[in-house]
This record gives sequence, structure tokens and C-alpha cells, in this order.
Amino acid sequence: MSARHRVVFSPSGHQGSVPDGTILLDAAGSLGAGIESICGGRQLCGKCQISVEEGEFAKYAIRSGAGHLTPIEAREEAYWSARGGSNGRRLSCAARVRGDLSIFVPPESQAHKQVIAKGATERRIGVRPAVRQLYVECERAELDDRRGDWERLQEALREQWGLRGLTIDLLALRHLQSALRDGNHAVSVAVWQDTEILRVQPGYAEGLYGIAIDIGSTTVAGYLSDLRTGELLSTAGIVNPQIRFGEDLMSRVSYAMTNADGTERLHEAITGALNTIVTECVREAGVDPLQVLDFVLVGNSVMHHVMLGIDPVELGGAPFALAVSGGLDLKARDLGITTANPSARVHVLPCIAGQNGADNMAVLLAEAPHRRDRATLVVDIGTNAEILLGYDGRVLAASSPTGPAFEGAQIRHGQRAAPGAIERVRIRPGSFATSFKVIGSDLWSDEPGAVASATGICGSGIIEAIAEMFQAGIIGADGRFSDDAARTCARVRFQERAPEFVLAEASETSTGGPIVVTQNDVRAIQLAKAALFAGIKLLMNRAGVTQAGEIRLAGAFGNFISPRHAVTLGLIPECDLANVIAVGNAAGDGARIALIDRDAREEAKRLANMVEYVSIAVEPSFQDEFVAAMALPGGPDTPPARRRQRRRDAVLAGAGARDGEL
Amino acid sequence: MSARHRVVFSPSGHQGSVPDGTILLDAAGSLGAGIESICGGRQLCGKCQISVEEGEFAKYAIRSGAGHLTPIEAREEAYWSARGGSNGRRLSCAARVRGDLSIFVPPESQAHKQVIAKGATERRIGVRPAVRQLYVECERAELDDRRGDWERLQEALREQWGLRGLTIDLLALRHLQSALRDGNHAVSVAVWQDTEILRVQPGYAEGLYGIAIDIGSTTVAGYLSDLRTGELLSTAGIVNPQIRFGEDLMSRVSYAMTNADGTERLHEAITGALNTIVTECVREAGVDPLQVLDFVLVGNSVMHHVMLGIDPVELGGAPFALAVSGGLDLKARDLGITTANPSARVHVLPCIAGQNGADNMAVLLAEAPHRRDRATLVVDIGTNAEILLGYDGRVLAASSPTGPAFEGAQIRHGQRAAPGAIERVRIRPGSFATSFKVIGSDLWSDEPGAVASATGICGSGIIEAIAEMFQAGIIGADGRFSDDAARTCARVRFQERAPEFVLAEASETSTGGPIVVTQNDVRAIQLAKAALFAGIKLLMNRAGVTQAGEIRLAGAFGNFISPRHAVTLGLIPECDLANVIAVGNAAGDGARIALIDRDAREEAKRLANMVEYVSIAVEPSFQDEFVAAMALPGGPDTPPARRRQRRRDAVLAGAGARDGEL
Repeated sequence: MSARHRVVFSPSGHQGSVPDGTILLDAAGSLGAGIESICGGRQLCGKCQISVEEGEFAKYAIRSGAGHLTPIEAREEAYWSARGGSNGRRLSCAARVRGDLSIFVPPESQAHKQVIAKGATERRIGVRPAVRQLYVECERAELDDRRGDWERLQEALREQWGLRGLTIDLLALRHLQSALRDGNHAVSVAVWQDTEILRVQPGYAEGLYGIAIDIGSTTVAGYLSDLRTGELLSTAGIVNPQIRFGEDLMSRVSYAMTNADGTERLHEAITGALNTIVTECVREAGVDPLQVLDFVLVGNSVMHHVMLGIDPVELGGAPFALAVSGGLDLKARDLGITTANPSARVHVLPCIAGQNGADNMAVLLAEAPHRRDRATLVVDIGTNAEILLGYDGRVLAASSPTGPAFEGAQIRHGQRAAPGAIERVRIRPGSFATSFKVIGSDLWSDEPGAVASATGICGSGIIEAIAEMFQAGIIGADGRFSDDAARTCARVRFQERAPEFVLAEASETSTGGPIVVTQNDVRAIQLAKAALFAGIKLLMNRAGVTQAGEIRLAGAFGNFISPRHAVTLGLIPECDLANVIAVGNAAGDGARIALIDRDAREEAKRLANMVEYVSIAVEPSFQDEFVAAMALPGGPDTPPARRRQRRRDAVLAGAGARDGEL
Repeated sequence: MSARHRVVFSPSGHQGSVPDGTILLDAAGSLGAGIESICGGRQLCGKCQISVEEGEFAKYAIRSGAGHLTPIEAREEAYWSARGGSNGRRLSCAARVRGDLSIFVPPESQAHKQVIAKGATERRIGVRPAVRQLYVECERAELDDRRGDWERLQEALREQWGLRGLTIDLLALRHLQSALRDGNHAVSVAVWQDTEILRVQPGYAEGLYGIAIDIGSTTVAGYLSDLRTGELLSTAGIVNPQIRFGEDLMSRVSYAMTNADGTERLHEAITGALNTIVTECVREAGVDPLQVLDFVLVGNSVMHHVMLGIDPVELGGAPFALAVSGGLDLKARDLGITTANPSARVHVLPCIAGQNGADNMAVLLAEAPHRRDRATLVVDIGTNAEILLGYDGRVLAASSPTGPAFEGAQIRHGQRAAPGAIERVRIRPGSFATSFKVIGSDLWSDEPGAVASATGICGSGIIEAIAEMFQAGIIGADGRFSDDAARTCARVRFQERAPEFVLAEASETSTGGPIVVTQNDVRAIQLAKAALFAGIKLLMNRAGVTQAGEIRLAGAFGNFISPRHAVTLGLIPECDLANVIAVGNAAGDGARIALIDRDAREEAKRLANMVEYVSIAVEPSFQDEFVAAMALPGGPDTPPARRRQRRRDAVLAGAGARDGEL
């Protein structure tokens, strides 16, 4: 019986004994300590490098030293000398075990990598990409072997990597013979989901990238990652060129309905944006576009359909029927993506419902509220507010028709979030002294050196303005300008007998005129926030949740909104302000997770079936909740019955409401 | 217990008893008598119509009558009145069994259809197309059902047709919602291999076609078939536009090698030809191009590669490595086919070897020599002769480098088979009286009314001319002009001391000069036929076959060649002339079989593994056989040892031989 030696791998702690002479890479495999290898143990890729920990390890009862490995031989020497020395490292595919060992596996050599998703809360994501690269050595073509090169490659992949039943993309097949010739019968292949070859390169090659893209109504954002390490290498964001067909979703749907080639033109606009994103991402990362082989695309249901080239008309009205709700695996070229590898694949995440798209599925993947113990709300505010409520393995979803007021539309001086837009507002109760901050400036308007540069009010600005006006007593709980304020506050003026609040004097703007908040502006925000709040309440009622433990605000708007003002205004239910957290572009994060972890795509499939979707429009209690939520503040600070009555009174006394919604 | 009735189906003879009230279509299903249905029993498609045989059927001990079926009701009545009456037919999905019945199922209503492949020998082909059409009724979209229409369609296809795990082509998905809307939630779908939806049409629809295409070096031929009935509806043939890059295969391979965009231009030429074939086929058949959803493509290995867009350079020399040998399933659009449905599929049959392409696999499918009891040779003569030898479950294949002489190249007055080409020759021994027939004329040149229209000699003409010259003693067994004939035959003349035979006097041609057969012409044909014969002999030796029971000549050349002259010249081994049969475009037939019978594609996969390929170039005995086959006649009519010696002497005394081949 041959001698055996103990081997311990750190930091994983995997350990055990192996026969004398075992190759260290094989020892790691048999003991469950995954060490990466692209070249399959041929001392080419260097992904399996490790170092030996020297000394006595009492805990494991071993004495470890570099001398317990076989010495470096010619081939390994060639690898290290080409790289300027080993710096104490060894290739675990070259070294054999000769004695007890403690082996340190550096993070980059670990097979089961994880990356940290940046954001409000860090999250570890497993790196298990859908596309991976494998080095393989094929048999040489011989006159008496009538198999094709593709058949020989399949055989080699079966023998060397255990892959069976493979197909190859036609465009990759076209390069197979020249790659084999140039690589002296060795090639590196990129394999999608262990089923389809997407690329064949001569000899040993590495470099494999993917791009996650979130197609928003306003902005298209791309995230390029290294598919081997999971690392985020570059990002790109552009304005959605569909904007020229309409600012909000419904105007784009109606463009598709009223123009014979409407869907096609909207689709081409998105395709152009995707191609631009790819070009910008690869340029910034310094990556060859042919190395981009995988995409994950998400978007709200209208963007999702238009991106696929599907007429979005059915999404324009009840029953908001999706053409397809499940996840899709496509070829990038069939979507018109021409700036990446022509064999690249695309995965489209599932939609939750007709009004709750693949972007919210991505939010769900990223935020995973169902994995939390306490009731966690995730709110993504856009033209529709998409709402998730999860806890303890359960998740409910809804979409609330807030309309575009939160994006600055339907507001007299509303505008998109851009330099010059007022985004922060303070009004001192009593004196009504008012100051604001615009995007692009660090100074408050009343600070020395502030420049008169305000151009309008963006979504977060109007929320703060109205919340501050309410707290200063300028408007009442019903949203109406108070008679008192009209008398005592010089900033309240009347235009054709309708009151308005002067947020910025003409001297403080770059437009030459004042920027005001009108009674109708207040009403528009009331309607929007009532829709949002009512949607949240319905979900909470359905789930039997009375108190939100945590509220996570997703999306650009969520990033800029002030939690205090959002609660003051009743946009979101009362919650410990420390637990109201902006989580950034959670949809983009979720798309990125699905890009680097193929298991997340399976998870999305499970989630799509698991989510309990609440269709707000058909909930009988929605109207009651909506009416109840019109007043300020919307928080549940008074007993429900009294609160409801008070609010109903306030609303019915109000200046108007959206047709058909009350 | 309810009453049961006996039901007999003719002509299949399936019979048994079913409970009273059973729907006749279900009765047929349970008794194993397949009756077709596209609409799934909804009285829409009319494919299940049958008639009742009236009277006493002693053999089955039943008395049958139309009264033993439930009467025609409103829905069935509507079907028949829209078609001008039932003419005694019933829809078996509407009628219920009320008594004993003898039912006649007309051929068009039988589920397991067969078609007869025309040709020298009739063959029944099962109609089991890869694409079929199904009618399906979906659930209506509802506000509280968040599944997409595609998911609802999948559910309906699972429930109504038992299909699971389906995917849908993106371009078909784009039409799903409008089809559901226009069809009031009922659609007809075209399904490929029970796995992928290729087309969705509103309501009940039929009409599904496929095109089999044989890409020859010279001619591209297409065959459009109805995929439901298997019927051949139209054909189209055009000259392969690659001819402008070179007449023969090797000149095209060298075009690809010597031009940077050579492969691309060759590929585009083929793509253009495929699109023309589709357009001509659908026009002739009066079919909507969108109804063309399946293709089968075959061609020799160079055409196969170029059609796929693969550089054919490796096929230009040993080891003749194919980039891919197995069958391929592709999208027509990825090959540049734009004139059919954009979601159409393509199946490419496997190649047998680098010099024995998918066209010969199609010949193998069509002729199935391995299914015969007696040794059967199938010979397809082109620039390469492709040879199959099969019997009793075994099949051997080889490719012999005959060169282009049989196609009229390398012959002084050789030309392609076209009007004016001499295709038949008679020389009377003794008088040397010579007559010939040209393509495009029914008269022999010595018949009254014959017009002087000869322009050259085509492949079959040169075979006959040399065979007749040999039989008349003008040339000897070694191929040399005999001294006797030079003296006694006025048609033998000398040009620069080289003898030649005047086949057509200047007065008999339209070229103004005579048409002659030179010593070099004889030599070129000797080399070509020796290569062919040696290849055949090698296969026979390998198989232990001494006598061919049957010889089947495939391809255009095989259609025109005279079996007697072919044997006289030693092109093919001796065989009862009644068993030397021209089988036409067997490659096209095989492609058509794979088009209408998906099982044939599986059969091709099995055959590709089963064929014993003999690589002639590496067979040590090839040179011996080649030398032995140079003399005339090549038939095994003398003892081998003496024959071989005699021929070797004859050849070594001859005027020359191809470099490197002797």
C-alpha cells in the first residue's frame, strides 16, 4: 500500500488524505476544495495557482512545506518565466503531493467565486455564468477518419470536459477549421449553458464578457461584467431614444397603435440604444466586442415587448395581456444587436404581470424581500409604481398607476431630473423663509455664492416642496391652500383666483420668471401619492401586514427622494426612517445578478410562479384606500375609521379628482 | 352495462367494439385505425371525413348502414353546406356510433399517409413531416390571469395536443397576439419536431409546404411538397451561379483559397440560387411563400460547406477534412434564405466523408442498397464518382477521382450536355459507316431530314463513340488507334502524326469544322473509367462480392449513358443489362424523402455511422486495380492474373498517364 499524505486547503478548510504523488489539482477536486481551471490541467491558463503555507499546523497535526510538493519542471518553469517569476506560487495542476501540506487558495483561484454587489446592502453573488470558456485538444484529421472537425471537437469535449449533446452556432462553426489549424488542433471554446458552442478560438484563449441592460422608459443602462470573475468593468447609460415618440409609456403605446410601422420604429430605436450601450461599455472596459457573448435584458412590460419587436398595444388597456411572461433565451442577432459577437446569447427575465415587468423581476432578484424576516417593502417609482412586499418566503407584487407626476410631468414647472432642476426644498414654519437646492450645485439658494440657476422642479423637488408647504401650514391636510397662509405668507399669490406658492423668485431662476407650485400641482401629487399608498396598503392588507419593517426605494427617483418627506407626505407608510433605504438601480443589479449567475435565471422562473400578484384595478377596496390616501399625511397615525372618514371629507371638498378614479 | 357495437374500418381492416354513442373519430383512435385531424375534432378541418359502407358484411358478422350513425347536426351541416354538400360523406368527429358499422376511410383521410416516389422503381414513403399544423383554442386573457398569451397557448397545446416543453421562434411570437385577437382566441400553429412553434395564424388555417433542394456543382434543383399529403407540387432547376467562379469543384475551392472574400462570394451565389428556387417553386405551385416552413438541403461536400458559409479549403486536399459531417438543424434565415417564411427551418443531411457528401447520403436514403438481397451498386457520376455497394444490411461507400472527362471536359470537342451535343453514336464494323444523334433532335445523322447541327460531344456521346470505335476495331484493347484501321478507315486521319477519328464531317456540324475523337480523348476517358472501375472493384473486393446483381446509375449522366456501352467500355462491371438501371436524380429523391418523413433524418444519422467508407486514395491495391482497368474492355471477362498483366502491358505502352496516379 502506497503512502498517503494529509492536505488542508485554506480558507475553505477542505481537508483529507490523498495517495503519494497525487496531482494537487486532483487532490483539491477529490477533497471538495474547488480550484479553477480553464485549460483542464495543461499548465497553460494559470488559473489554478496556489501557495504552500510553511510550518507546523497543530490543529491539523501536520507539518507543511514547499518541499512537500514535487519541484517545478520544464513546462511549469516556462509558464512562470514568461510571467517574470512565480513569486512563491505553484500551478496546482503541475505539482504532485509528496508530504503533508497546508495549501492557500487565493480568491482568484477559487472555483466557486463570489462577488459583492455594491449598493445600500452588500450582497454576495455566486459567479456561475451561463457562458464559460474551455480549452480542449482535438484529434488531428486523418484520411481514414471521416468524421468532421465538429464531430471530433464534440468527442474531445465529451472526454475532456464531460459535455454531451452539444450543438454549435452556425457562425461559430464557420471559424472552427481555421481555429483548429491555427491552434495546432487545440482550441478554446465558449459554451452556453453547457449545450451550445458560441465561439471557437485557436489555442488557449481567455476573455469572456457579458452585459446586463435595464431598458427604462427614460434611460437605458448597461453593465459590462467579466463572466469569469463576475467583476463589473464598465457601465454606460443613455437616454432612451424612444423619447422622441412620447415621454411616457402610454404615449409610446399609442404611437405603436396609430402608426402602421410604429412598433417597428420603436423596436429599431431600442435596438439602436442597445448597440450604443454595447459599444460604450466595451470601449470603456477596453474589451474586444467579439468577447461579449451573453446579455441579460430587463425592462418594464412595454419596453420588454418593444425590445422583442412585439406590438405593445395589448398592454395599453385591461386586461393588460402580456404576449409572453416567461423568461426567454434568444440570439442577440435576432434582436438586431450587431455590435457584440454575432453568436451572442440573450436572456430576458420573466415579467411578473402585464403591469409589473421584467424590471421588477430583476428588483425582486436583487432585493429578495421574501428572504427577510421582517416585512420588507420594495418600491420602484416611475410612471407606474411597482411594489413588492416580502417576508419569510412569501412575496406579493402590485403595480399602482401613479401617473407621471412624480417624474415632473403634469406639474406647472415640472421637469426631468437634470441640471437646474430644484431637488431639495426647505420652508421655515412661521417666517415661510424658503430655500432650495438645484441639481448641479452644492449650495442652497440662500447661501452666499449661490447662482440664480433654477430651471424647474424635478420629482424629488416637488415631493419636498409640498411636504414642506404642508408642514409650514401653507396647505392643509386636504391639500388646499389655507386661508391663513394666503394672508400671512407673501409667497402665496393668486393667478385668476387660483392660489400658488412661489418657490423661486424670478431673481433666483435662469428662466426669467418665478417657479411656482400651484393648487393643481398639489392635486396631481396627491393623486399620485394616493395611488401609490393605496397600492401599498392593499398589498399589506392582503398579506396581513400592519407595519412595514423596512422600506427599500429603488430606481433613480428612490435615490433622490428624502425618506422624511416621503413619509410626511404619505407616499409610503410610516416606518423607522433608519429603515427607509434608497437601493439605487435595483433592476440593473438584478439583471447583473442574472448575468453572472445562471442559477438566478432559474430562481427568477421559480419566483415568477411564486409571486402573489395583486391586480389593484380589480380590488374592490382600492377605491376606498385611494380616497383615504388623498389627504396629507398619508401615514397610519390615526385610527383607520376616523382617518378614512376625515380623508374622504377632505377629498370630496377638494378641487377635483381624476375622472373615473373616484 | 351500455350496449356496444362492432365497427370495422376499411381498407386498413382495424376493427373492434365500442360503447354506444362513441364519437367515430375516437372509435377509430381506440381501434388503431388512424384518421387524420388538424382541428382536433372540432368539425372545422374536414380532414376526418369517411363514408359508411351499406349492407351485410358476413365476414365481420355485421349489418352496416348510414342509419347506424347519429344524424348530421347544425355544426356539421354548416361544414357541408359551405362546401356544396357532403356527397355521402360524414365527419367522423361529429358522428356517433349507434349500431354496427363498416366504415370506408378514403386515402386523404388516413392519418398514416404514404406517397409513391416516382422513379425507376416505385417506393412508398411514409408522410411524417417535421412540421405539422395544429388548431388550438386558448383561454381568454383575464385581468386576474397574469400569464402571457404564449404561456396560455403552451397550456392549451399541452391539454389539447399533449405537447410539452415547447419554444417559439421570436418572429412567430411577434404575431401571436394579433392572431389570437383575429381568431377569437383560436389559432393554428405550425410546430417543428413537436418542439418549436414556427408560425401562428388566426383561427383554423391549413397549407404547409417544404422544399427539398439538391445543390449540384452544375445544377441546383428544388422540389416543393405539400407537407400534409407528401405530394410533390412543383419543381425548379437552375444553373448553379457559382459556375462563374469555375466549372468544376476544384476551381471553386481554389477561388475560395485565392480570394479574401472568396467563400463569402461563393456562399452568396448559392444563397441567391436557393432564393430563386424558392420563388420559382412557390410560383409554379401557387403557394404563399409564408407557408414554406421546412427545407432539406443536400449537396456534395464542397457545395455543402459553401452553402453553410464554411471555407471549403480543407476539402481541396488530403485528408479532405469536413468541418462538420453530421446532420444539422438550422434556421433558414441564418443561411440567407429570405424568400420563404422567416421562421422556416432547414435540415442538412449528414455527409458520408470529405469526398462523399450529403448528396450521396440522399442517394443512399433513396436507393437503400443495403436493404436488398443481391449486391447492388449505386453509381453517381460527376467530377467525382460516388459509389455505394449494398446488400443484406451492409453498405460500403467510396468516391473515385474520375476527373471531369465524363462531363466533356478535357475532350477536344467535348461540351456540356446541351442542344447540339452528340449523345448517341453508331459505327458499323467493317464499313465504319458512322451515324450519331444530337441532343434536341430525334433523327440519326444518316436519316432523311437530319440537319447539320452537331456542336460537340457530351459525356454520354464520348462513351458511346469510344465503345463503338473499340468494337469496330478502330482502337485496340490498349486504347491505341490500330494500324489496320488507319489504313482501311477513311475517317481515321492524322494531325501532326497523332491519329484521330472523324465522328462528324464538317458538313454534319454547325461549327463549320469536323468533330473528332483524338488519341488523347481516348486516353482521358480511359483514365476516368479506370478510376471509376477501380473504385468499384475495391468496394467489391472489400465486401467480398464478385458479381454485381444490380447496377443503379444515378444523376443526369446516368440517365443518358447507355448501359451496353458502359459495360463495353468497362466503366462498370459486367452485369445483366436488364439490371443496369438509370434512377434519375436520386439525390433529389432522397432529399425529398427526408423532407416529408422526419424518420428518414434519423435513418440518415444511423446510416452515417453504419456506412463503411473506403478511402480509395489510401488503399494499397488501388494502383493495381487502376492500372488493370485502363484497358478495354474493363469487364472481368478474362482470368484476373492474365487480364491484369495484359492491361499493365497495354498501359505502359500507352501514350501517357496522369502524373502521380500510376
